[in-house]
Amino acid sequence: MSKLVECVPNFSEGRRPEVIEAIVNEVKRIEGIKLLDVQSDASHNRLVVTFVGEPQAVKQAAFASCAKAAELIDMEQHHGEHPRMGATDVIPFIPVRGVSLEECVDLANELGKEIAEKLDIPVYMYEAAAKKNERKNLPDVRKGQYEGLKTAITEPERKPDYGPAKMHPKAGATVVGARQCLIAYNINLSTSDVNVAKKIATAIREAKGGFKYCRAMGIMIEERNVAQVTINMINYEGTPLHRVFETVKNEAARYGVNIIGSEIVGLVPMQALIDTADYYLRLEGFNRKQVLEENI
Amino acid sequence: MSKLVECVPNFSEGRRPEVIEAIVNEVKRIEGIKLLDVQSDASHNRLVVTFVGEPQAVKQAAFASCAKAAELIDMEQHHGEHPRMGATDVIPFIPVRGVSLEECVDLANELGKEIAEKLDIPVYMYEAAAKKNERKNLPDVRKGQYEGLKTAITEPERKPDYGPAKMHPKAGATVVGARQCLIAYNINLSTSDVNVAKKIATAIREAKGGFKYCRAMGIMIEERNVAQVTINMINYEGTPLHRVFETVKNEAARYGVNIIGSEIVGLVPMQALIDTADYYLRLEGFNRKQVLEENI
Repeated sequence: MSKLVECVPNFSEGRRPEVIEAIVNEVKRIEGIKLLDVQSDASHNRLVVTFVGEPQAVKQAAFASCAKAAELIDMEQHHGEHPRMGATDVIPFIPVRGVSLEECVDLANELGKEIAEKLDIPVYMYEAAAKKNERKNLPDVRKGQYEGLKTAITEPERKPDYGPAKMHPKAGATVVGARQCLIAYNINLSTSDVNVAKKIATAIREAKGGFKYCRAMGIMIEERNVAQVTINMINYEGTPLHRVFETVKNEAARYGVNIIGSEIVGLVPMQALIDTADYYLRLEGFNRKQVLEENI
Repeated sequence: MSKLVECVPNFSEGRRPEVIEAIVNEVKRIEGIKLLDVQSDASHNRLVVTFVGEPQAVKQAAFASCAKAAELIDMEQHHGEHPRMGATDVIPFIPVRGVSLEECVDLANELGKEIAEKLDIPVYMYEAAAKKNERKNLPDVRKGQYEGLKTAITEPERKPDYGPAKMHPKAGATVVGARQCLIAYNINLSTSDVNVAKKIATAIREAKGGFKYCRAMGIMIEERNVAQVTINMINYEGTPLHRVFETVKNEAARYGVNIIGSEIVGLVPMQALIDTADYYLRLEGFNRKQVLEENI
């Protein structure tokens, strides 16, 4: 099976269909790329494109679309509800199959350099590709947005990782990085007491001493009269599904509460489900190549 | 995702490379077919070909290779260690993706009819496609082999399901059917007492009142000094992995023994692992389309 990387670039254009089309076409024309999704929003004035392919093809598609955005979008004219700092605002790479997060970090650095050198756009590296701790989170990198960064970019602590310490006159600056695939995961409890869900959420989330790659909240699902722990699993290899499930089960037992079910919202990488089966069946030496479909 | 069926026809030829090649070529030339494996054995004088594809393409490849075998193999001249009754001895269809066992039964019947009508070869339906209970197991259908069936075929209880009650002068008779993908699954116990493994095997296997689709034995893994329940899961939808695992765990507890690990030997369909994760995480409304890779 070929290596697969996902890429989800965000562009500052959600209103002009011809610009959206031109950017998406730059992705489509690269051989071996599979376009998965295109979402644009007029009030956010933002475009989110999702595609997968082999690492180098994905990098090529990301660069081509970024170059087209720099050509067609003028940040001086851009207004929208969503925070942003560049024509191509952010480009994350996500490992899908046969690729490590580290390889995606390398790919992000290659792309960052290329954008800086060929397009003269300042580039910041974020998430797993961050070169400084304080650049891991996108909102921190984007502080002040396009308008604020025009002056702040000359400050030493805001110096770009690649390219000039000077905003591109039309395209602004771009954030490039790598992260694990995010899994939206909810666990439903046998109680209508939202406080139990809140206490469990507190126990498992990183911010409060819980799992490093777990963001969680306790909420109420009114239609079902059920309390829910709603979770963002931001790295299912570091913090696997089964560990969160079992910990929630144990914490709930403290209140005499059971798990009545859990939900995966949206997409989940195959590997996360294989890891779950591997854990519960106590598999010895299981290799993903043993999955029948991987041989087809 | 397109529907996928696996087919594993067995031919009575394991010695003449040019015949083997001619039969395999009939599979290869069908568009959309992916050849997974070719195994031939001179002492068995037998050829086993494994391929996958969409249902109609798979049926077409099965028919073409069967016709070629009828042309090139003369059962009057065939000798080998493996029991057999025809040039194409047996053709099982196995659901892989987006296809039910019932659809494979229908496909098997279409093929059986086609072989009987176009090649004048008597056809018996077996496994899930069997039309009589006593034809479910291949050894029962093949009783007497090619030589014995030449006369037995005229008896009412040996009447073929399709085609003439008369052996084809060169190609003999063929068995066609459908079955679930088989999973070879071993569970290792925290004991060196093989009797515990034997008792557990007795508890879970169909023959002794256990699970319908479970064949099991208790054996000793000498290198590790560990007793093992070795299992053939012949229908993982009817008898899922997790149910066998949990039952073995419970039965072992009766002897103060734990499961130290389990092994999947060879291939496993993705769905069996998804079902395992689904059970243990108590997933609500999970759909296979949520698996990221299914969208690529």
